[in-house]
Amino acid sequence: MRRTMSDRLPEHIGQQIRLMGWVHRRRVLRDVAFLILRDAHGLAQIVVRDGGRLTPFPEETPVSVVGEVIARPAAPHGVEVVEPAITALSDPAAAPPFDLYRPELRAGLPTLLDHAPVALRHPTRAHVQRVAAAAVGAFRGALERQGFVEIHTPKIVGAATESGADLFALDYFGRPAYLAQSPQLYKQIMVGALERVYEVGPVFRAEPSDTARHLASYVSLDAELGFIEDHRDVIAVCHLALRAMLQAIPSNDLRVPAEPLIVHFTDVAEGEDLSPADERRIGEWAGREHGTDAVYVTGYPTAHRAFYTHPDPARPGHSRAFDLIFRGVELVSGAQRLHRHDDYVRALAERGETDLTPYAAYLDAMRHGMPPHGGFAFGLERFVAAALGLPNVRHAALFPRDLHRLAP
Amino acid sequence: MRRTMSDRLPEHIGQQIRLMGWVHRRRVLRDVAFLILRDAHGLAQIVVRDGGRLTPFPEETPVSVVGEVIARPAAPHGVEVVEPAITALSDPAAAPPFDLYRPELRAGLPTLLDHAPVALRHPTRAHVQRVAAAAVGAFRGALERQGFVEIHTPKIVGAATESGADLFALDYFGRPAYLAQSPQLYKQIMVGALERVYEVGPVFRAEPSDTARHLASYVSLDAELGFIEDHRDVIAVCHLALRAMLQAIPSNDLRVPAEPLIVHFTDVAEGEDLSPADERRIGEWAGREHGTDAVYVTGYPTAHRAFYTHPDPARPGHSRAFDLIFRGVELVSGAQRLHRHDDYVRALAERGETDLTPYAAYLDAMRHGMPPHGGFAFGLERFVAAALGLPNVRHAALFPRDLHRLAP
Repeated sequence: MRRTMSDRLPEHIGQQIRLMGWVHRRRVLRDVAFLILRDAHGLAQIVVRDGGRLTPFPEETPVSVVGEVIARPAAPHGVEVVEPAITALSDPAAAPPFDLYRPELRAGLPTLLDHAPVALRHPTRAHVQRVAAAAVGAFRGALERQGFVEIHTPKIVGAATESGADLFALDYFGRPAYLAQSPQLYKQIMVGALERVYEVGPVFRAEPSDTARHLASYVSLDAELGFIEDHRDVIAVCHLALRAMLQAIPSNDLRVPAEPLIVHFTDVAEGEDLSPADERRIGEWAGREHGTDAVYVTGYPTAHRAFYTHPDPARPGHSRAFDLIFRGVELVSGAQRLHRHDDYVRALAERGETDLTPYAAYLDAMRHGMPPHGGFAFGLERFVAAALGLPNVRHAALFPRDLHRLAP
Repeated sequence: MRRTMSDRLPEHIGQQIRLMGWVHRRRVLRDVAFLILRDAHGLAQIVVRDGGRLTPFPEETPVSVVGEVIARPAAPHGVEVVEPAITALSDPAAAPPFDLYRPELRAGLPTLLDHAPVALRHPTRAHVQRVAAAAVGAFRGALERQGFVEIHTPKIVGAATESGADLFALDYFGRPAYLAQSPQLYKQIMVGALERVYEVGPVFRAEPSDTARHLASYVSLDAELGFIEDHRDVIAVCHLALRAMLQAIPSNDLRVPAEPLIVHFTDVAEGEDLSPADERRIGEWAGREHGTDAVYVTGYPTAHRAFYTHPDPARPGHSRAFDLIFRGVELVSGAQRLHRHDDYVRALAERGETDLTPYAAYLDAMRHGMPPHGGFAFGLERFVAAALGLPNVRHAALFPRDLHRLAP
């Protein structure tokens, strides 16, 4: 008999069906017992007269249940399964380290992460992963509708670029190599071939930061586009992606109007960079005055942005870089980039980079004709944590990697 | 003025438009000169009376062209742009190391790879990357329609599993770590949480093989599903994905009927494994006798497959593993996996693995109740090379990594 998913049971009242899933909970009362089965679509209630029949099926055991569906308004989906034949699909499961059947997992973050293979089964944590998948799908969809082509750039690179700090080093067939901190240089190169590109992939940061916002590896959602006027064309695409990603999250109360709110650095801050307190203040102002959770700050001082950042010709010392501050937290960085070869050589020299060997292919792409271009990057885990209001980015990562954690 | 893409010019005959793209070629005749412009959608012909006007715009320079569209049946898209105002969008481009305007790139593979940032601009090579993107999109679409959820598993792992050979080692904050050879163990774990999962991401193999089919890193298209009857449920999903991926390739002449052709190892081979010659022979037979480019061989001897492979209870010594042979080349490996904790402990012991620490999280997932499950993996570059008939997998990789190559 074909399998019926739990949420389709109401269509089968009066029929024999087959459910498959995990024993979510057993409740043995005096005259009756319930087996709550969990599958990918939800929960289903199965009724047996003799509670002893459930003894061979401890919680988390995968089972197949064949029985008849009857209406029962108080049960999940308004139905229950009666007269069941229950078969184990594996050995009886060992007891989980925490109760998976409770509405909330009662365990601290370290415990949840240590036991991630089991914790991720809990509906609340599985939901976070489904939200992450939906957000990535929406990001791709928004960009593909705008003509972007997906690429997969190398994760092992031969040279340290972009400062060289925070790199993981590895042995590559006897040669030194590094894990890519970002697809930045490659996605710019690919503008020369495909005009508009995006990538969803891992990036690696050997950052010693041990905070609620940092991971040693995360999923970066990158985009880059050519033939732009300036950074506002980049913000327009970023905003389309942001709105699509938010709309993919079921029943969220996030407010992001279609028109991006853009403010200039000099109008909201003093000094050279924004502090976390500045970001919170700007986020609150945007919500209060403009009814939006998202605000783009442009014009960051050039000296504080990456060497490839395009300056703003109209405002000496300021750049065409931007950050997206979402609910008071920096979520996206982006910019128009330099596109002339000689500007790169100058910018690298100003940062003290005189050995240009690591940049050879990158500079080559610029030398052979690169249009004005720019791009941006989301961190997936940070986006999911911000959108769902999770207190630590590790709640959004599948199997997080940080300063201390390398397993599971 | 907004930009018009080259393929939309026929809709604008008699109008002023603006093109943006690269100078693909200049042809200066006695009385007239042509600038062929290349953008992401194709080529466009621009006519000037005085060839000297094209001197400031060498091939590959990004330009903006404003002019009037007129009908010209012999030109690309049946139109050309006249009375143009041409503006450079960057400095004049340096001459490419090979002629990008010829229909085929006249350079050997090493040269093409050394100059990949420029070679990828050639329409034939950009096309390969568009095909790769379309194939990945089709893979995702096929799986999402079947209820699969996208995941992103760790690429840095703390322990060597699956034999431990061919691993890239790295320094993880002072501890030894490795790059993941595959998402195998994690995708199986995630069946416990989401039932059906897929991943598109890089895998890393420190293989010393220097062949036309091996890369040190490639894009793996992985899927895994729970609550299966046996490996045939896995093949059914793999075949859906394969068909969708092939259909995403424009005007291909690949033959893959809807029903998968499945043969048993013992009916097509002797010995313990298939040689490349066996694979070619089986591929030819499938094409000749069954009119298909794809054939699934099942029942490989268990001893020659990974420890997690489920044996075939009906055929001692044989497994529920399969390979997809596509046009005579192995393209996909898959199998039903073991799902009982004790079977894993036994299988690992039989392979001489007595220290189970590296498998702790994996075995935990099995101990806490895992349904019968299985999965498969495509190598993206190998798929694209096979589908397009490319002689070397490096033609399909964006910036390949192999025994010798670590740049660009």
